[in-house]
Amino acid sequence: MINLGVASLRLCAGLVGRRSGFCARSLRTITGMTVSQIDEEVAKLLELKAQLGGDEGRHQFTLKTAKGTRDYNPKQMAIREKVFNTIISCFKRHGAENIDTPVFELKETLTGKYGEDSKLIYDLKDQGGELLSLRYDLTVPFARYLAMNKVTNIKRYHIAKVYRRDNPAMTRGRYREFYQCDFDIAGQYDPMIPDAECLKIVHEILSELELGDFRIKVNDRRILDGMFAVCGVPDDKFRTICSTVDKLDKMSWEDVRSEMVKEKGLSEEAADQIGQYVSLQGGMDLAERLLQDAKMSQSKQACAGLTDMKQLFSYLQLFQVTDKVVFDLSLARGLDYYTGVIYEAILTQTGPVPVAAAQNGAGEKAEEGVSVGSVAGGGRYDGLVGMFDPKGRKVPCVGVSIGIERVFSIMEQKAEASAEKVRTTETQVMVASAQKNLLEERLRLTAELWNAGIKAEVMYKRNPKLLSQLQHCEDSGIPLVAILGEQELKDGVVKLRTVHSREEIDVSRAELVEEIKRRTSDV
Amino acid sequence: MINLGVASLRLCAGLVGRRSGFCARSLRTITGMTVSQIDEEVAKLLELKAQLGGDEGRHQFTLKTAKGTRDYNPKQMAIREKVFNTIISCFKRHGAENIDTPVFELKETLTGKYGEDSKLIYDLKDQGGELLSLRYDLTVPFARYLAMNKVTNIKRYHIAKVYRRDNPAMTRGRYREFYQCDFDIAGQYDPMIPDAECLKIVHEILSELELGDFRIKVNDRRILDGMFAVCGVPDDKFRTICSTVDKLDKMSWEDVRSEMVKEKGLSEEAADQIGQYVSLQGGMDLAERLLQDAKMSQSKQACAGLTDMKQLFSYLQLFQVTDKVVFDLSLARGLDYYTGVIYEAILTQTGPVPVAAAQNGAGEKAEEGVSVGSVAGGGRYDGLVGMFDPKGRKVPCVGVSIGIERVFSIMEQKAEASAEKVRTTETQVMVASAQKNLLEERLRLTAELWNAGIKAEVMYKRNPKLLSQLQHCEDSGIPLVAILGEQELKDGVVKLRTVHSREEIDVSRAELVEEIKRRTSDV
Repeated sequence: MINLGVASLRLCAGLVGRRSGFCARSLRTITGMTVSQIDEEVAKLLELKAQLGGDEGRHQFTLKTAKGTRDYNPKQMAIREKVFNTIISCFKRHGAENIDTPVFELKETLTGKYGEDSKLIYDLKDQGGELLSLRYDLTVPFARYLAMNKVTNIKRYHIAKVYRRDNPAMTRGRYREFYQCDFDIAGQYDPMIPDAECLKIVHEILSELELGDFRIKVNDRRILDGMFAVCGVPDDKFRTICSTVDKLDKMSWEDVRSEMVKEKGLSEEAADQIGQYVSLQGGMDLAERLLQDAKMSQSKQACAGLTDMKQLFSYLQLFQVTDKVVFDLSLARGLDYYTGVIYEAILTQTGPVPVAAAQNGAGEKAEEGVSVGSVAGGGRYDGLVGMFDPKGRKVPCVGVSIGIERVFSIMEQKAEASAEKVRTTETQVMVASAQKNLLEERLRLTAELWNAGIKAEVMYKRNPKLLSQLQHCEDSGIPLVAILGEQELKDGVVKLRTVHSREEIDVSRAELVEEIKRRTSDV
Repeated sequence: MINLGVASLRLCAGLVGRRSGFCARSLRTITGMTVSQIDEEVAKLLELKAQLGGDEGRHQFTLKTAKGTRDYNPKQMAIREKVFNTIISCFKRHGAENIDTPVFELKETLTGKYGEDSKLIYDLKDQGGELLSLRYDLTVPFARYLAMNKVTNIKRYHIAKVYRRDNPAMTRGRYREFYQCDFDIAGQYDPMIPDAECLKIVHEILSELELGDFRIKVNDRRILDGMFAVCGVPDDKFRTICSTVDKLDKMSWEDVRSEMVKEKGLSEEAADQIGQYVSLQGGMDLAERLLQDAKMSQSKQACAGLTDMKQLFSYLQLFQVTDKVVFDLSLARGLDYYTGVIYEAILTQTGPVPVAAAQNGAGEKAEEGVSVGSVAGGGRYDGLVGMFDPKGRKVPCVGVSIGIERVFSIMEQKAEASAEKVRTTETQVMVASAQKNLLEERLRLTAELWNAGIKAEVMYKRNPKLLSQLQHCEDSGIPLVAILGEQELKDGVVKLRTVHSREEIDVSRAELVEEIKRRTSDV
């Protein structure tokens, strides 16, 4: 009888687990529950299900991470640490402070900031109390932080995970949980100086990470809006036409034109005029030329943007980064909050095709490789902080976000392809013994080394074989072994073995720490 | 007309926002919606609410972080970085690798692992797809990782935020989002060697952080269970009596005894026998004494635990940490998954009362100070990985978790109290000018310094006053100023000023980088 009850409960729990409306609906019809009661019931059923599945149900257990997320194993963490060190060093070199914000915000903090992308926000379940959402980026929490703490100028970096319920192509390094490395300058300053520093930072980081060639596209929301105006786009269509222009890196001009005209109802003349502008790329010269352009010069907004663009390029020349930066009128960027300069960095070198992509049938064009695309983006958002301030006080901001997952993907592939082994620990020495019954002596020596700041390991066995101790050093790249034996203990020495050369020398206990430091100073 | 519609929508959205069942119920009655349709409607209404509130509704906006969470400002981040560096250095010194797991797991991964505390788990909203929960600790994700990747031995650390819907006392450093710093050793090894290393690590970290005196209590689940058995506790009451014993650090023995007898129905005799045991504290001697104890020695389990406890203390003696470790029979620890040794570190020094606590009326005993209590805990959990393995294969594990928020609280109070200023950047030099129209020259020199790896700042103004440039250095602790003027440019030199001494010397451009490095080598 108990079994029967259990079976029906499990069935129901299973259905709820698979989100069938059927089970929930029948519950409601039967009992007339409120939504929160339904929530509670579901939780209870799942709890029961877990208890039931505790022993016999073990096989039903789904052993995986949530969709679009990943674990980092030690090798991947070693690579991640290296990438972060490069990025953090750069941020610190530019005098940035560091802040952190919670992983979730009040839902209302995020609503109305991301336009169409709002549907990608993860909400937390209403468990009584506040309605919460996982952060979608680090920019909106930063603006909330500034308004809340009445900070009017700061240069800060923030490295943390953000969350988007996207349908990710994980083989290309896109995830639902991923890191952003943000650097932002808030404050009222003279035009384009902080903006230029952001581009300098992107240039430094992408150069230092050695990911191959890259290009940084620059544009300005005011130039785009001015261009739309002089091309005859109605005011209320600016944003939607902007979204279509943003697709030019993935779609041909013909398709973009067709979307503008057929889907968004733009006139053919306006579309064609836009087409002439968005094909333009250049540098300071292009900005100068457009300032003279009969049509473009009619827009005050465009002129303001173009004058600033000239100024920006003059600073970029001083920073010696114009080799990679291109003024590109087709760059639009999706987010609503940008008000001035916008930019995006792309890797131009095609990398090797990830194995998984090739296996999934996406490898037809394997010879051409897969472009990893955009790795950094940002711009000026002078209005966002004002949206949070009770009195609407604005704090001008400009910033850049480095998207690190794609960089990880490339670095991981490089590491796979390379013969060089990635070390996952920094252990300098293994304390070993060749004879039995020396565990206590090994532990005593290991503690001595730890207390002297030496990174040391010891095997957790009473009597490990010397060979397995040496093998562990080979496997994990530990460069030295301190070997204890009866004779060494009597003589007050340790046999110090260099793993790669197999050379051994006796070192007195008193000099051991210094000798290990000397031999591993490059580790 | 539009206004009227808007008003009623806002009312409804507001009600849903406040979780009134009323609005949801009437929606259902009217339309016969499914649960997921209701979810969608709520989302739409909230979106609309945000849009409506975009401009005129600005004042209604709640400018705060979610309950139980906090931002970290630059000063707090500087302290956090220092604490993490100490902890990570220790973990690396012991040869640990680093892993990371996603912030959320499938809900079923967490269910059935935390006993009564399961109600504190944050669930994500069902937005179609998998049912997800925020991680409650790092131990269960670690066990899931081991089972999923078939890892049978690893020594790893993991530093990340975990989430508990607790009612936190934030003035005492308790939060709903907080960091855990975990170190665990998984693998089949000889008894108590990895267990002893975990305690050595706690000892090293708490000593290095200089938080005042501390004590590490040790016990063993087998000793507790054996003790319950010989005192006459029925088998099915072991866990609940264990929970009551766990309260001995907050409640008197009389109250604990009363809970056992009156609430949990234990006989008075059994309770009194337990009372005699749980008052015992000692070291290896106590373990030896209990092995001879007429009653205790009847339990095989207790004897196994006591024999291991003796072994543990012999290793702790080799590690020279027995000064802080005490075998305490009253230590029980809440979590279900422990199977052997358990431990908990507490700070024994009473710190200064946090201001907020005193203001909230909790400051009556201000003279006595507020104990910050437990800062680390852990133990052996040999069964947890087996719960995830499809074939139930066990991987023995032992680990420790350092709870860092309380440590931050203490360090922040110390920093407040101290005269020494916490630097929030590492900037070595400020590039400044006394005269006008030298922005380009300042930017050029700053870029030169960045490219040479010098941490340099420059003011984002065309013509900043020298005084305000110097003031910025004073405020943020920048030790050097590189001053450019017409004369310096002509002479190919830079005036290098030491901020604290106000001493100035001319340095040639060619030697500037080396001179800055030399003068800031201790930064």
